[in-house]
Amino acid sequence: MTPPPGTHPYLSITTDFGAAYTGICAGVVARIAPSARVQVLSDEVGKYAVVEGALLLEQALPHLPVGVHLAVVDPGVGTPRHPIAVRTGRGDFLVGPDNGLLAPAAEALGGVAEARILDNPELRLPALSSTFHGRDLFAPAAAHLANGVPLGEFGPALRPSPLEIPEPVLGEGELGATVLYADDFGSLVLGASPRDLAAAFGRLEYGAELEFAGVRVRWAATFGAVPEGEPLVFADSSGRLALGVNLGSAAARFGLAAGRTVTLRAIR
Amino acid sequence: MTPPPGTHPYLSITTDFGAAYTGICAGVVARIAPSARVQVLSDEVGKYAVVEGALLLEQALPHLPVGVHLAVVDPGVGTPRHPIAVRTGRGDFLVGPDNGLLAPAAEALGGVAEARILDNPELRLPALSSTFHGRDLFAPAAAHLANGVPLGEFGPALRPSPLEIPEPVLGEGELGATVLYADDFGSLVLGASPRDLAAAFGRLEYGAELEFAGVRVRWAATFGAVPEGEPLVFADSSGRLALGVNLGSAAARFGLAAGRTVTLRAIR
Amino acid sequence: MTPPPGTHPYLSITTDFGAAYTGICAGVVARIAPSARVQVLSDEVGKYAVVEGALLLEQALPHLPVGVHLAVVDPGVGTPRHPIAVRTGRGDFLVGPDNGLLAPAAEALGGVAEARILDNPELRLPALSSTFHGRDLFAPAAAHLANGVPLGEFGPALRPSPLEIPEPVLGEGELGATVLYADDFGSLVLGASPRDLAAAFGRLEYGAELEFAGVRVRWAATFGAVPEGEPLVFADSSGRLALGVNLGSAAARFGLAAGRTVTLRAIR
Repeated sequence: MTPPPGTHPYLSITTDFGAAYTGICAGVVARIAPSARVQVLSDEVGKYAVVEGALLLEQALPHLPVGVHLAVVDPGVGTPRHPIAVRTGRGDFLVGPDNGLLAPAAEALGGVAEARILDNPELRLPALSSTFHGRDLFAPAAAHLANGVPLGEFGPALRPSPLEIPEPVLGEGELGATVLYADDFGSLVLGASPRDLAAAFGRLEYGAELEFAGVRVRWAATFGAVPEGEPLVFADSSGRLALGVNLGSAAARFGLAAGRTVTLRAIR
Repeated sequence: MTPPPGTHPYLSITTDFGAAYTGICAGVVARIAPSARVQVLSDEVGKYAVVEGALLLEQALPHLPVGVHLAVVDPGVGTPRHPIAVRTGRGDFLVGPDNGLLAPAAEALGGVAEARILDNPELRLPALSSTFHGRDLFAPAAAHLANGVPLGEFGPALRPSPLEIPEPVLGEGELGATVLYADDFGSLVLGASPRDLAAAFGRLEYGAELEFAGVRVRWAATFGAVPEGEPLVFADSSGRLALGVNLGSAAARFGLAAGRTVTLRAIR
Repeated sequence: MTPPPGTHPYLSITTDFGAAYTGICAGVVARIAPSARVQVLSDEVGKYAVVEGALLLEQALPHLPVGVHLAVVDPGVGTPRHPIAVRTGRGDFLVGPDNGLLAPAAEALGGVAEARILDNPELRLPALSSTFHGRDLFAPAAAHLANGVPLGEFGPALRPSPLEIPEPVLGEGELGATVLYADDFGSLVLGASPRDLAAAFGRLEYGAELEFAGVRVRWAATFGAVPEGEPLVFADSSGRLALGVNLGSAAARFGLAAGRTVTLRAIR
């Protein structure tokens, strides 16, 4: 099956594979769906970092063309977790493991309209390895979807698993939040929103100071609003709270990574 | 506005963003300008390294097709530095912050024919974040230029800022130069040219030895001209002097990075 | 010379260059062969790691479309090693240095049908640098091949050099193998096959234990078959033996890298 002549379906790829294994997946797609426009959204998701991958997809896909979005961050490869494809309200197809990776993006794209388990052996590569489902199963499925193969042909319907994200902890003049991931600049994206900040500290003006780990941290609109090397709390480009350092790395400065807790406090 | 049917304008992207944020910018371009051929020139420019990014663009763009070249290395995001687009003598459009990043490449492509501030809100995304102008402002501008939107519609004319590059210091039998950046192989690209070398030491034959940091360094045409692990001074592929190590990294060997000074001396 | 209108020859690129120098090569290709579909297979091959690059190509190219495959891992740049192009039995063209890099992939694609030295100066960039043959020589050759220039026009025929891969050492209840490379997940790919494992230890059932470096290592089909943080020996997706750690890095855990020896022993 091929798409109508002259059309070039858009297909993005997101993995924690690094360049080489991602390139192999892109090649598999190019072979099955030669007319697709293939773009690597990221091959640099942290290894096995399902939450980071899920939030990248949630943040990125609404800015990308409607298309097929292949995403593989799959700590459970070779275990019984389901491989799935999801049709969204916007009309995209999301392809990946059913471990929560696709859930926030599906929501951001209009919700799950239909979801299927990928268990049709004719829509995989002939041999399925135990360790590289990106190449053997997910990339072929994405390519066949780009070619117009109906979602119903891939397998039975299922209800995709949600993503578990740690909730913020609100105290009096105190906000505890989990580091969801460090971005490429070392900014620590937190499991909390500007609304949570307001709930903990009241409505803050930009420039207001909070305390974190014995250090004063300014609530600011952007990096350049604090001096070089100074920390700030800001609403990042995806709308979450983040802890950054102007022209520096908060991850390095505070020695923090995904899964750790950050507690912001009012200054007394 | 879209380009004439069947045409595929070329659009390159260069950032210090890493894969994910660069991928989002590429997706924004693909959405606005679906017929563009998009290529990431580099998503690995050193963080905030305007000089490195500028010299990569200067070196690379003359080898690329005439097209739109989006470049974002922007330590001043959220401060009043102007976002700009430049039309070059060769017919390219360069899009990025007005911090010198685009200046050497514009020169290498025939000079600045026209430059505009990007302040037309209709040629941005609807919401402009404070921290991610690559996505919200620069990528849309580049995509609209690829679609054929006239440069004059983006905003008022300006004269772009030049790039400040440290000059070499010539002494008697001595050449001091600043490390502009370390390339991916650890070669240290210097703010000096083979002409400066001749001015300091007279016309050197390949194989001639100089002294640096107590070590003998050979002036050579290529890495393979010195034994494995030995340092060399060479004219790099962009025509600048560079300090390298055959099958090794000069940055690691000498513990040097951008901004440090290298002084080559004649051997007495 | 250009390909027939409406055709889009496939061209992959594999290097140890990192993003920027690889991007320049891709730009050179885009300029000479604007209709080619260009995909970076990897820009992250280990520096000067010819064996790693060769095994990636061997593993990847059979999954990619028939096309032109440009590969540059070239520790001998600037020395007299030949630049070559190879036509394979499958109909691909492989372009790169004659240092063994292309040999296993050529074999995997149906063998060498024809091979030529790239010494026609009209099919290079006008100026040939001493240090960046990827840009000046290999990328133009690949682009011209994509455009349909006959292989015979590039230069005289040669017989390409083979790749030297260390052989496994079989003892009684003992298998010694060289680490060929560490993949992006830190799995150590070994110069030995499942057949060698059977020769050393007899036919093993999944779950059987071996000993390595004082640690018990399970022979398993996939990562998820051993507990988190535990080591395993498995047949990797290219069919070689590999030493991995579930949800971890064997390279980090055992402090091993390419060139080191791994000896697996039966448990007594």
